[in-house]
Amino acid sequence: MPANVIIARILTSRPLLDPLKMDIEAFRKAGYAAVDSICDYYATLQDRPVKAEVLPGYLIDSLPHEAPAQGEDFSAIAKDFQDKILPGITHWQHGRFFAYFPSISTFESMLAELYSASVSNPGFNWICSPACTELEQVTMDWCARMLGLGDSFLLEKKQGGGVIMGSASESALTAAMAAREKALTYLSEKEGLSIDDARQTYGQKLVIYGSTQTHSLGLKAAVLLGLTFRAVEVAEADKFALRGEALRKAIDRDAADGFVPFFVIATVGTTSTGAVDYIAEIGEVLKQYPTSFLHVDGAWAGVAYALPDRRDQLRLAELVEYADSFCTNMHKWGLVGFDCSLFFVRDRRNLTDAFDVTPPYLRSKEADSGAVIDYRNWQIALGRRFRSIKLWFVLRSYGTQGFQKHLETGIGQCERLALVIEESPIFELVTTPSLALLCFRLNPRKGYSDEELDLLNQRLHTRLDVRSDVFLTQTVLKSVERKFYCLRFAMGGARTTWEDVEKTWEVVVEEGQAVLKG
Amino acid sequence: MPANVIIARILTSRPLLDPLKMDIEAFRKAGYAAVDSICDYYATLQDRPVKAEVLPGYLIDSLPHEAPAQGEDFSAIAKDFQDKILPGITHWQHGRFFAYFPSISTFESMLAELYSASVSNPGFNWICSPACTELEQVTMDWCARMLGLGDSFLLEKKQGGGVIMGSASESALTAAMAAREKALTYLSEKEGLSIDDARQTYGQKLVIYGSTQTHSLGLKAAVLLGLTFRAVEVAEADKFALRGEALRKAIDRDAADGFVPFFVIATVGTTSTGAVDYIAEIGEVLKQYPTSFLHVDGAWAGVAYALPDRRDQLRLAELVEYADSFCTNMHKWGLVGFDCSLFFVRDRRNLTDAFDVTPPYLRSKEADSGAVIDYRNWQIALGRRFRSIKLWFVLRSYGTQGFQKHLETGIGQCERLALVIEESPIFELVTTPSLALLCFRLNPRKGYSDEELDLLNQRLHTRLDVRSDVFLTQTVLKSVERKFYCLRFAMGGARTTWEDVEKTWEVVVEEGQAVLKG
Repeated sequence: MPANVIIARILTSRPLLDPLKMDIEAFRKAGYAAVDSICDYYATLQDRPVKAEVLPGYLIDSLPHEAPAQGEDFSAIAKDFQDKILPGITHWQHGRFFAYFPSISTFESMLAELYSASVSNPGFNWICSPACTELEQVTMDWCARMLGLGDSFLLEKKQGGGVIMGSASESALTAAMAAREKALTYLSEKEGLSIDDARQTYGQKLVIYGSTQTHSLGLKAAVLLGLTFRAVEVAEADKFALRGEALRKAIDRDAADGFVPFFVIATVGTTSTGAVDYIAEIGEVLKQYPTSFLHVDGAWAGVAYALPDRRDQLRLAELVEYADSFCTNMHKWGLVGFDCSLFFVRDRRNLTDAFDVTPPYLRSKEADSGAVIDYRNWQIALGRRFRSIKLWFVLRSYGTQGFQKHLETGIGQCERLALVIEESPIFELVTTPSLALLCFRLNPRKGYSDEELDLLNQRLHTRLDVRSDVFLTQTVLKSVERKFYCLRFAMGGARTTWEDVEKTWEVVVEEGQAVLKG
Repeated sequence: MPANVIIARILTSRPLLDPLKMDIEAFRKAGYAAVDSICDYYATLQDRPVKAEVLPGYLIDSLPHEAPAQGEDFSAIAKDFQDKILPGITHWQHGRFFAYFPSISTFESMLAELYSASVSNPGFNWICSPACTELEQVTMDWCARMLGLGDSFLLEKKQGGGVIMGSASESALTAAMAAREKALTYLSEKEGLSIDDARQTYGQKLVIYGSTQTHSLGLKAAVLLGLTFRAVEVAEADKFALRGEALRKAIDRDAADGFVPFFVIATVGTTSTGAVDYIAEIGEVLKQYPTSFLHVDGAWAGVAYALPDRRDQLRLAELVEYADSFCTNMHKWGLVGFDCSLFFVRDRRNLTDAFDVTPPYLRSKEADSGAVIDYRNWQIALGRRFRSIKLWFVLRSYGTQGFQKHLETGIGQCERLALVIEESPIFELVTTPSLALLCFRLNPRKGYSDEELDLLNQRLHTRLDVRSDVFLTQTVLKSVERKFYCLRFAMGGARTTWEDVEKTWEVVVEEGQAVLKG
C-alpha cells in the first residue's frame, strides 16, 4: 500500500472530534439563553447611558492576544458578550439616541437575521437558493409600490427594478460605475470611436456633481473611481437645496474646459439639514447633457415617500420623472436592521451591461435561459446575504399602515420640539426642520457674529460630547451667504417617546446655560 | 394658537400604536420558536434534497404583489418561512453539498448574528460602538497569528493589519483602488507631475494582472475600475499555477506599449483546481515595477494556513515576504457564516491615503487624536456590520486546534476520494487534488479526444444537474497545452462525513455509467 493511501486511511478512519463543536441541543440551550439575554437588554435599555462609557483600548487591553488553542464552553463566551461587549456599545436603539440618523433594529429584523444565518449561503445566483433571489424581487417591488415609485422602478415590468445593497455608499458607487460605462458607450458611438479609445480619451475627464451638502459618499465615489467630485454651492435662501441654475453653471464651466458630466447626485434629505434638492430643475439641465445619469440619494428621507402627504415636499413626482436611479436605506429610519439599502434603477441593463463577467463555473441553466435574475450582475461583489427576509418580516409585521404611523411619530416629535426651540430665548432653529430632523444653535440674541456663535456652539458641543446620557452630532452649514456651526437633533427612533426628546432637550438647555455663564 | 402648533399637538398627543409592533415578551416567544424551528431544520437536513426542487418563479407567483396594509401576526410570518422559503433553499449546510466551495455556517456563527443584530449600529467609527472596532482589531490579529502571517500584517504593530470585508471581490477591489492611488502617486513624484496630471496621463494605462485561473473577481475589479485585466496563460505542467516568467513576458509586452502594471493578483487555491501561484517568482518580477502592488487571493484555501504542515505547499513564507495584501474568506471553509472576508494589508496608509474623506459630521475626538482606528477609511462603504462577533464566537468555541481538526477532516476525505477515483476504470483525476478539492472527468480509456470527452462530461453534468440529491459544479480548464471540461468535487463541509462523500460518488458513478451506455 503506497504511503499516501496509508496516510489517507489514517486521516479518515481515526476518531475525529465531533465535526460540529456545538450540536443541535447545545444550540437550543444557547439560543434560548441568547433570546433571554436580549430581552433583558431591551428591558433595561432606557436605564443605560446612550453612549459607551469606555476609553479607547478598553477591549483590546482586556482580551488575549491570540485565539485559544482549546475550544471554550459557549456559556463562558456568551457571558463575555454581556461583560465585555455590552459596555462598549453605543446604544443606537436607545430612546434618547439623537445623533447622526436613527439606525433602527426591530425584533422582527433580529429574528430575520437568525433565520437568514440558519440557511446561510452566498446567494450569488438563483440556484444558490432560489428563495433568496425571488424574495428579494418580491420585497423590492413591495417597497417600490409602498414608496410610490411607479412602474419604471418595478422589477415586474422587466425593465428597471430594485436590489438590496449594503449601504447608500455602495449604491451610489454602483450607480456611478454603471453611469461611467453608459457615458463612454454614448461617446464611443457618437464619435465613432472604439470603447477603448473612448475610455482613453474621456476616461479621466468624467466629473461627478453634487452640492456642498451632498453626503461624503459623493466625494468618496469620485475618489474610489479616481475622478473629480464637484460640490456646487447652495443658498441658505433655498434651504440648502441644490438648484438647477447653479448646477448648469458648474457643468457649463467644466464642459468648456473639456470635462464631461456623467453622474449627478441629487439628495432628498441631506445629512446636515434634510434639504431636498430641486430634482426637476436638475433633470431639465441634464437634458442637454446626454452623457449624464441622475442618481437620487434618499438614504435617510427616502422612506418617507411611504407617506402620501409628504411626497410633494420630497419631490416624488420629479424623482419618478427624472431619476435614473434612487437609493433609500431601510436600515436608517425604516425599521430594518443594518444593512438594508434599497437601490432602484430605471434600466437594469445599465447595471448588467457594466457588471456581467460570468465565467464558466458560475453559469447555470436557469440564468442562461433568461428565466431568472442573477443579482450578482447588479452589484460589485459576487456573494450576497439573504437580506430580503428582514424586509419581508418587517413589512408584514407592521403593514404599510404601521410603517407610516412609525414615521409620523418621529415627524410629530420633531414638529413639537421645533415649537419649543422657537420659543427659547437662548436657542434658535437655523433652518426649517425637515421631517424628523432639526438643526439648532445657541444664540442668546446679543448681536453676536456667526464666528462668535460658532465658538459658543463648539463649547456647547464639547460639553455635550463628554456626557454619556445624550448624543447629538454637530455640523457645519456652508452656503453662498455664510458658513456656521450648529447642532443636529435627529428623531425617529422606534423606541423614542416625547419624554425622551424632552429630557434630552432639558440637558441641552442646561449645558447651553452653563456655556453662557462660562 | 398657530395652525402648525395645533397640528403638532394633535400628532404627538393622540394615542399612537405601540411604537414597536413586537414587544419584549412577544420577541421571547418568537425567538424560542425560531430556535426550535432551526433545530428541527438541522435535525432533518440530511433527509432533504441538497438542491432546491423548485422552478423559476415559484415564490414570486405565490406571494402577494404588495405589502399588507395591516400588520400580520408574527406566527403566520414564521410559518411562511417554513412553508414558502425553506423549499426554495439550496442547502449549503447539507453534508452532501459539494458544489462551488463550502459556505459553512455553524451554530456559534448564527448566534453571533443574532447578538450582533440586537445591538445593531452602522459601526462607521469608533464611537458608533467602541466594541465593534476593537473586537475587529482583536480578532483580526487572532487570525493573523493563527494563519502565521507574521508581524507585517498585525494591527498591533501599527503599520499593517486586517479588516473584515463582505467578500473576496470587495477585498480585491479595495486593494486595487488603493494600489491605483499608490501607483499614480509614485508616477507623479517620479516624473514631477501633479497627481491630477499623473492621473490624466496614466489613469487609463493601468493594467491588472492575474492568470486564466484567477477568479472572476480580477476581471470584475478591472471592469468596475474601467481598466484592463490581463489573464496570463498557465501550463498544465505547472498544475495551472501562474509562474513568474509568463507574467514577466506579459508585463514587458504591455510596458513596451506604454501600459503600467499596478495590480497583480496571485491566487492561493484557484477556484477551478485549487492551484497555488508561484508567489516568490511573481514577487521577484514585480521588483522591477515599482508601480505594482501584489494582492494574494486565498479566498478559499487561505484558511488552511492555520495548518502548519500545509504552509509550504501554500507558499506562506513567500506571501509573508512579497504580498502587499492578502484575503481569505472565513465564510467559505472557515466555519463562520457568510459574510466574513478577512483582508490584510502590509501598509494601512495605502488604504487611508486612498479612502479618507472625513466630513465634519463624521469627525470624532477619538479619531482626531489618532487614538482609534476608523475602519470606514479602510473600505468602500461608510457603514459596516458588527461581524467580528462571528469570528470571536467561532474561534473561541473551536479553539485553533478544533479549527485545524475541521480542516484536516475535509482534506482527509478528499485524499480518500482521490484514491477511489484513481482506481476507477471510467473516471480520472485531471490534476493533483488540492486540499479538500479535486477535479475529475469521465474517461473510459478508449482513446477519446478531449473534444469527445468534453461531450461525455457535459452529458454527465447535465444528468447530475437535474438531480436534487447531488450538487457538483463544472469547470473548463484552459492551459497552454489544451482546454477541456471537467467536474469539481469540493469537500470540507462541516457536516460532511465520509459516507456523504461515498454516497455522492456512487451517484456520479451511476450517472457516468448511464452516459457511457447512452
